Amino acid sequence: MIKTDILIIGAGPTGLFTVFEAGLLKLRCHLIDALPQPGGQCSEIYPKKPIYDIPAYPEILAGDLTDKLMEQIKQFEPGFTLGERADTIEKQEDGSFIVTTNKGTKHHAPVVAIAGGLGSFEPRKPPIPNIADYEDKGVEYMIKEPELYRDKDVVIAGGGDSALDWSIFLTDVAKSVTLIHRRNEFRGALDSVDKVQELKDAGKITLITPAEVKGIVGDGKVEGVLVEQKGQEPVTLKTDHFIPLFGLAPKLGPIADWGLEIEKNAIKVNNALDYQTNIPGIYAIGDVNTYPGKLKLILCGFHEATLMCQSAYQRIHPDKKYVMKYTTVGGVTGFDGTKKEAPKAVVKAIN
Amino acid sequence: MIKTDILIIGAGPTGLFTVFEAGLLKLRCHLIDALPQPGGQCSEIYPKKPIYDIPAYPEILAGDLTDKLMEQIKQFEPGFTLGERADTIEKQEDGSFIVTTNKGTKHHAPVVAIAGGLGSFEPRKPPIPNIADYEDKGVEYMIKEPELYRDKDVVIAGGGDSALDWSIFLTDVAKSVTLIHRRNEFRGALDSVDKVQELKDAGKITLITPAEVKGIVGDGKVEGVLVEQKGQEPVTLKTDHFIPLFGLAPKLGPIADWGLEIEKNAIKVNNALDYQTNIPGIYAIGDVNTYPGKLKLILCGFHEATLMCQSAYQRIHPDKKYVMKYTTVGGVTGFDGTKKEAPKAVVKAIN
Repeated sequence: MIKTDILIIGAGPTGLFTVFEAGLLKLRCHLIDALPQPGGQCSEIYPKKPIYDIPAYPEILAGDLTDKLMEQIKQFEPGFTLGERADTIEKQEDGSFIVTTNKGTKHHAPVVAIAGGLGSFEPRKPPIPNIADYEDKGVEYMIKEPELYRDKDVVIAGGGDSALDWSIFLTDVAKSVTLIHRRNEFRGALDSVDKVQELKDAGKITLITPAEVKGIVGDGKVEGVLVEQKGQEPVTLKTDHFIPLFGLAPKLGPIADWGLEIEKNAIKVNNALDYQTNIPGIYAIGDVNTYPGKLKLILCGFHEATLMCQSAYQRIHPDKKYVMKYTTVGGVTGFDGTKKEAPKAVVKAIN
Repeated sequence: MIKTDILIIGAGPTGLFTVFEAGLLKLRCHLIDALPQPGGQCSEIYPKKPIYDIPAYPEILAGDLTDKLMEQIKQFEPGFTLGERADTIEKQEDGSFIVTTNKGTKHHAPVVAIAGGLGSFEPRKPPIPNIADYEDKGVEYMIKEPELYRDKDVVIAGGGDSALDWSIFLTDVAKSVTLIHRRNEFRGALDSVDKVQELKDAGKITLITPAEVKGIVGDGKVEGVLVEQKGQEPVTLKTDHFIPLFGLAPKLGPIADWGLEIEKNAIKVNNALDYQTNIPGIYAIGDVNTYPGKLKLILCGFHEATLMCQSAYQRIHPDKKYVMKYTTVGGVTGFDGTKKEAPKAVVKAIN
């Protein structure tokens, strides 16, 4: 059982910044995210896209935003349960919560902060009847650990940035890389398209277009895929892995069944006070919540996280009064023993 | 008469970021600030101090925060009335407002956003009976334009960073610089104290400590100051300028008389919706406002500014519906004709 002060569901920018604000209050955090790395959409969907409305960043790439937040919270030693989806929540007699993931990992905390964005990102799956039988047995919808593909034959399907970028990346890892797309045209960054062209010309990527994978064969694990190229007879292609990269679609998922008040696929919160939901001790912050005038912006999530932490502090320490100190004045003391602080003024005579 | 869409009172971080959010909605802004430069406290009081709680900045100097915000809003061409204090407000028949400064500059706008921080920073004045007679006639409590001191004799009083830093700076500009402090010890950055020591040793700064300026002499303008050094007879020192730098203290000032609901020196706002005050069309954002759970943090001001702009848009364009577009998707188009946007994905065949 993982124990923490604030259990954060969702490791996107709002969830990450919560760790910092909680840390200033000496509260520890643990984050659960269905994606294999922190950063939420910013890391998974558009890491190389610039964002222009993060205050005081005239421009920042979404991936860099994640890196900066990870650096900012490092001192506060957050815990992570990644690649697992928060599935069930049970309220305990003392008002605390146990949250269990789809893989059975249990987490216990007096406060739960749902920073789930648009929900957990679930891969779009191709309509292959027996595909579920091969999931995690050679079929992966997301690449979590590139080393899995070392010296293997890999078939990737898809026509966007993920399919292009992973095809490029895996040429250095896998024994062979075959990229299959139902059109001749790919849609992605110009660099990536050009790089795939180059790798194809060099014989390092096999390209099959316009074509679709229509079936999977193998005894207990993927041994081949049935590929149908337009105007030709289907052929079976020997492979160890089949990786369909057709994008991710967000789903509120199991959280929708936790007894929270939901409106238009978002969780209603008390925005006049502390972004708490209808269940005391469960807060919802960032894109996952809704209230009158709500804007789904990262900068709003930062504010919501900050006010939420103050309320969480009161819940965890009902008898203490917290007096806010400015970081410029008091510095920031990490749980790892490090301290950041402004250079002190000296008092010194001039003779 | 200066005309704009949103008249922002206070050019600190919150006021500056308002320009960006308003710009995304194609609303123009003009800012009034009593200080001679934008940035509020960040620029005037602690430009070289690090702030640790700006989201995604593990550390940023307050002065750099101002610079980044100025760069971010440049595209939206904000107007500035600096070195003047917003004094009076008159509501017009059409619901718009005219705001007049202490120097008589008039501004007309349908929406007023008070982003006044702790109030307008007023200099602490030394207790010299006739000092008011010489204000702007050789007595300055703040240095707005260093060129004013070119080839002049200057007396600075004070023992903190401002007194130290301006003494150093003016050695390159003024004919002579004399620094007077009531103690032998100065309190400031180590560099600055050491630099003053060095300039004193080189004969470029005259230091008189422990001493106080007790009087001013001159016919219609400063011609000299009466200096009393401990244990000695007072002497008159010939000078063209006397600059007491005893720090600034914030005062809510004339805004307190605008008919706004005030609580504990802050303006009450509707935080459940849009940070509007009791007077429709006047909003209060950032440290100047109060509501249940309020935290006086820069990141909270950014959020408040953002929601406020949406409400301002509705007030200015009651018949239009604004549909928010993400900057990552739609880019940012400035009033100066520039456009920032993410590199477009290409659709391209691989052959």
